[in-house]
Amino acid sequence: MANIEQLLGENSARVSLELEKYLKTPEKEVDGVYDAMRYSALSGGKRIRPFLVRSFAELFGGTEEKAIAYECAIELIHVSSLIYDDMPCMDNDDYRRGKLTNHKVYGEALAVLSGDAMNMKAFEIAASNDKTSVESRLRAVLLLSGLAGGVGMIGGQHIDIISENKKVDFDSLLNMHSKKTGALIRASALLGCCAAELNDPSDERVKNAEKYASGIGLAFQIKDDILDVEGDEKILGKAVHADEKLDKTTFLSFMSIDEAKEYAKRETEKAIDCIKQYNGSEVLTELACWLLNRNK
Amino acid sequence: MANIEQLLGENSARVSLELEKYLKTPEKEVDGVYDAMRYSALSGGKRIRPFLVRSFAELFGGTEEKAIAYECAIELIHVSSLIYDDMPCMDNDDYRRGKLTNHKVYGEALAVLSGDAMNMKAFEIAASNDKTSVESRLRAVLLLSGLAGGVGMIGGQHIDIISENKKVDFDSLLNMHSKKTGALIRASALLGCCAAELNDPSDERVKNAEKYASGIGLAFQIKDDILDVEGDEKILGKAVHADEKLDKTTFLSFMSIDEAKEYAKRETEKAIDCIKQYNGSEVLTELACWLLNRNK
Repeated sequence: MANIEQLLGENSARVSLELEKYLKTPEKEVDGVYDAMRYSALSGGKRIRPFLVRSFAELFGGTEEKAIAYECAIELIHVSSLIYDDMPCMDNDDYRRGKLTNHKVYGEALAVLSGDAMNMKAFEIAASNDKTSVESRLRAVLLLSGLAGGVGMIGGQHIDIISENKKVDFDSLLNMHSKKTGALIRASALLGCCAAELNDPSDERVKNAEKYASGIGLAFQIKDDILDVEGDEKILGKAVHADEKLDKTTFLSFMSIDEAKEYAKRETEKAIDCIKQYNGSEVLTELACWLLNRNK
Repeated sequence: MANIEQLLGENSARVSLELEKYLKTPEKEVDGVYDAMRYSALSGGKRIRPFLVRSFAELFGGTEEKAIAYECAIELIHVSSLIYDDMPCMDNDDYRRGKLTNHKVYGEALAVLSGDAMNMKAFEIAASNDKTSVESRLRAVLLLSGLAGGVGMIGGQHIDIISENKKVDFDSLLNMHSKKTGALIRASALLGCCAAELNDPSDERVKNAEKYASGIGLAFQIKDDILDVEGDEKILGKAVHADEKLDKTTFLSFMSIDEAKEYAKRETEKAIDCIKQYNGSEVLTELACWLLNRNK
C-alpha cells in the first residue's frame, strides 16, 4: 500500500481540482466573493475530512465519483469555519498555513461574506450530487447542517470562546473538542457512508464509522496538546507553548505527557478496533496511526 | 377578505411560534448561540418572505402545514443576513427595528456564530420537512443555497459594499437589488411552489411565481428609495434623506419621483398580471398593492 502521506496528498490535489471548478467565478459575476472563497479554499492543507469521506465511501462499496461532492462540501464548511475563527473578533490571527488570513487580504466584510457563500455552496454541492440517491443527498444535507450547527461545530467554537481565561473541567474540555473539531470529523465518516448509500443511522457499519471518527478526533486533539509542548517549532510551522502562554486548559492540565500519550494511543486503538473487521480498512488504520504519530 | 396587514401579522406570529420551537436551547447545551439566534429571529417584523411562501403554497394546492418549515428556513437565512449586514465591518448599525443589533448585545464573535448557526438551522429545517416529498425538500435546499449564495443575496451584498461612494450605472443598480433583496423574495415564491410539490422549474406556474416575485421585489426597492425622500421619519422609524447623505445611487439618481412612482406601479401591475389567472390569487394581489402603497 502506498504511503498514507502520498495518498493524502493525491486526494487533496483531487479535491482542489474539483473545488476550483465549483468556485470559478460565474460568467458576468463580480469577482470579489469568489476570489476570496478560492483564496482560502484552494490554499492546500492535508484535507483529512475529504479523505475520510472517500475512504469510508470506498470501504462500504461506494466510489470516489459518488464521494467527491460530499468531500468538497465538508471541506468548504471546514474552511469557512477557519475564516471565521481567524477574524479579529475571534482568534485574531494574521496567518494560516503561512499565508495571510482571509480578512487580512480581503477585509472583514468580504471574509464574512465569503465564509457565508462557502457554506451555501457546500449545501448546493451536496444537494446536487446526482451520483447518489435523493435519500443520500438529503441525509448529507442533514449531517452537514446538524454537525456543523449550534449543537456541533459552531456550538464548540462558542464554548471555546467563553472558556478563555477560565478554569474548565475535564468533561467540558471533552465536550468542547467533541464539538469544535470532532463534529465535522464524525460528519466526514458519516458522509462517506452516505456516498455508499448507507443512509440508515442504525446500520452497524454507520455506527462503527462514527465511533472510529470519534476516536481519531479525540486522539488528534490530545496529540495537538502534546505537540504544543514537545513539538519542533520549525516542523510544526507555529510557535510551541502557545497554550501555556494563553493559560488554556488542555489535556495536559489533567495528566502528564506520558499519560496523555497513552490516552491518545488507547483512543486510536479503539478507533481501529471499530473498522478492522471490514475488508479494505487498512487505509483507515494507517490514517489513525499516522495521525497519532505525526510530528506536525 | 381580511385586511392584508392583519393577515401578515397573524402569519408573522405563527412563524414566530414555530421558530421559538426550532431555536429552543437543546438540553445540556450552552445557551449563548441559541440565545443570540432567538434575539434576532424572534424580534418580529412583517415576515414578508414567509408570507410569500405560504401564499404560493396555498395558491397551488399546498397547505400551511407543508409550507411552515420552508417559511422558517427562508426567514432564518434572511435574519442571518441582517445580522451580518449590521456588523461594524459592513453597515455598522447599532439599531434595527428599534432594538440594539445582535453584535451590540452579544459581541461580534457571537454575532458571526449565531448568523452561521441560523443558516445551518435553515438547511436542517428545510431538509427535515417531512410533510413534503424528498424531491421537494432537495429542491428547497437548492433554492435556498443557490439564491442566498454568491450569485444571489451574498453576491448582492458584496456589490452593495463595493458600490459605496461610486457612480453606479442603472443596470448595475438593477443587478444589485435583484440579488441583494430580490433573490430571497424569488426564493420565497419558489419555496411556496415547492411546498405545493411544484418542483419543476419549467412549470408555467413556477415561472409565473418567480416573475411575480421579481416584480414586487423591484417595486419594493423603488418604493424604498421614494420613501427615503418623501417618507415621514416618525412613521418610517428611521431618518429620511439617508441615501442622499451617503451619496448613494438610487432609482432617483436616474428619474424624477413621479417617474419612479410610475415605474413601481408598472412593475406591480406586471407582477399581478402573472398570477391573477389563478383562483385564490387575491391575497397576492393585495400584498403587491399594499407593498406599493405602504408609507413605512
